[in-house]
Amino acid sequence: MNSKLQWLRNKISSLDMQGIIISNPVNIKYLTNIEAEGTLIITPKENIYITDGRYIESVHSILTIFDEIIVYDIKDISKDDYENFFMFCENVGFEENYITYSKYKEYIRKFKINSFVETEYIIEKQRMIKDEEELSNITKACNITDECFKYILNYIKPGMTEKQIAEEIKEYYCKRTEGLSFDTIVASGENSSKPHAIPTDRKILERDIITIDMGCKVNGYCSDMTRTFFVGEPTDEMKKVYDIVLNNQKFALDQYKDGASTRQITKMIESNFKLNRYDLIHGLGHGVGLEIHEPPYINGRNDAILKENMIVTDEPGIYIPGKFGIRIEDTVQITKFGCISLTNSEKNYIIV
Amino acid sequence: MNSKLQWLRNKISSLDMQGIIISNPVNIKYLTNIEAEGTLIITPKENIYITDGRYIESVHSILTIFDEIIVYDIKDISKDDYENFFMFCENVGFEENYITYSKYKEYIRKFKINSFVETEYIIEKQRMIKDEEELSNITKACNITDECFKYILNYIKPGMTEKQIAEEIKEYYCKRTEGLSFDTIVASGENSSKPHAIPTDRKILERDIITIDMGCKVNGYCSDMTRTFFVGEPTDEMKKVYDIVLNNQKFALDQYKDGASTRQITKMIESNFKLNRYDLIHGLGHGVGLEIHEPPYINGRNDAILKENMIVTDEPGIYIPGKFGIRIEDTVQITKFGCISLTNSEKNYIIV
Repeated sequence: MNSKLQWLRNKISSLDMQGIIISNPVNIKYLTNIEAEGTLIITPKENIYITDGRYIESVHSILTIFDEIIVYDIKDISKDDYENFFMFCENVGFEENYITYSKYKEYIRKFKINSFVETEYIIEKQRMIKDEEELSNITKACNITDECFKYILNYIKPGMTEKQIAEEIKEYYCKRTEGLSFDTIVASGENSSKPHAIPTDRKILERDIITIDMGCKVNGYCSDMTRTFFVGEPTDEMKKVYDIVLNNQKFALDQYKDGASTRQITKMIESNFKLNRYDLIHGLGHGVGLEIHEPPYINGRNDAILKENMIVTDEPGIYIPGKFGIRIEDTVQITKFGCISLTNSEKNYIIV
Repeated sequence: MNSKLQWLRNKISSLDMQGIIISNPVNIKYLTNIEAEGTLIITPKENIYITDGRYIESVHSILTIFDEIIVYDIKDISKDDYENFFMFCENVGFEENYITYSKYKEYIRKFKINSFVETEYIIEKQRMIKDEEELSNITKACNITDECFKYILNYIKPGMTEKQIAEEIKEYYCKRTEGLSFDTIVASGENSSKPHAIPTDRKILERDIITIDMGCKVNGYCSDMTRTFFVGEPTDEMKKVYDIVLNNQKFALDQYKDGASTRQITKMIESNFKLNRYDLIHGLGHGVGLEIHEPPYINGRNDAILKENMIVTDEPGIYIPGKFGIRIEDTVQITKFGCISLTNSEKNYIIV
């Protein structure tokens, strides 16, 4: 059995569960490497993946005998099979934050489960701490992101549209990686004041401001980086805001380390923004891994504690509606005594 | 108030609900045109969209005063606000097939809801029947898909990879539409035996078989079409299987009309496949609209009845593991007395 499934078996056993139903496809990919539509069930005796005819062949091509996973076609499972899977189990876990209310009711009925217990993100919590292979994949994705950004700075010329720049980034990534880790944001001029802007047909002007938020995937693992830069000399107001964002971004990096409270770090950035009469209107950062956004979420509402080998972003931003916005973001690895930035593109005023 | 929200208010009132919480972003887009992360709540007095700082500006730019939707930033909503929204409501609806078990528990606590009732896909059911504007968008997406297929048949040459062909399709669509309605399938040779194959670096050979499953989006509405075709003369076995698939695909089209039982149609195709010693390993079709797969689902397990102005696919396929697969799919509009195919690419043996 692979080490991640073995970990899960030990974990649920320590929580007095005799079985678990895993529905979140990202958790299934993490545990088994399977990418399909289906459900992983861990029973006292077996590891079972239930899928349908569309995926049977491709799932079999991923698994080896060492995975010890039995694959079932959903249409071959009888009423008795369902009832037998968890027979004599006292507690069976489920992903309350993933399965819908109607699935919850269906599972209880179908599997005849006595005590169906919430598992409070056990797998997501484990996924926060990356092993060596995961770290290596994310580092590669971050390196390629730095290279792509360097390439795109040379590529951008006034007259190009935001969409055209986003397409070029996509093409760059698609040639070298599994593709984008999320839809690239290219937001210029007043569009940059929308944190989640979608690239438009707006053309880059001679004196413009551009925010690009980009990332790619290597072996399923994501990178995430944002830079805001200028075509020609920025205005004094832009410089002033840029300095506030950059200083806070660097300040947060100085605080990121094993044991640090993400709420406290966020609060410090928020106060400094307030002091300058701005607001931090989104979270300060988030975990990065198989998903582009995953725990830990770094904001004022949560209180996650940073741990060694977490991968998180640091991305403060200031947005002035109708005028412009500035965000600077790196993906970093938490270490015992600090953090290592995995994206390393220029952060001082960039002028193209 | 827009007509779709007005419809929803009448609908829930007829079901003795005084309010409803809508969480499915596709349903929210359908009702309000908003594309963001948030929740739409219909209270006895108001239509409220709750989102966060990242989306406030873009949501405001979509809505007009005629929409009669109040936008709240989630961080400005107090405990009292939550409790007031549905005060004096006897029944409040929720989307049991969309919200997670943990959200369900959270809503009951936060909104202090007495009777939280399942709504059994009320909005999805309404979405099945397309109005004129929706039909026009889907028809456009299907026309562009036919044109793209014509273009790509001319483009394909032995030596190209599946990925390269998929990229060309994406580029074609991105120039003319909002982009892909799903990741294009380009599956050649033995890869074509996987119904959900992902394009690989496999190169097209001189005597090859290729399945392409493709579609695009126009104003949010999707198209979906599959063709299987040949490089050089197909083998006798391929021809035999092709004829079975094509005859069944046409037979199903003849059955598609207002009032027809999708289960019965599927059963007929299944029997004919069995008669030829093959299996129908996936559904026969599905609805198409804002989502590429939406109700009605056409297979042997459901029993949806087709209705005028539904848009559905007809896509039987036969897959011989390790050898090849053949699928032929059209997107069609159901009418009173039959159906109209909206994708109209060649279906007889195509040889490039």
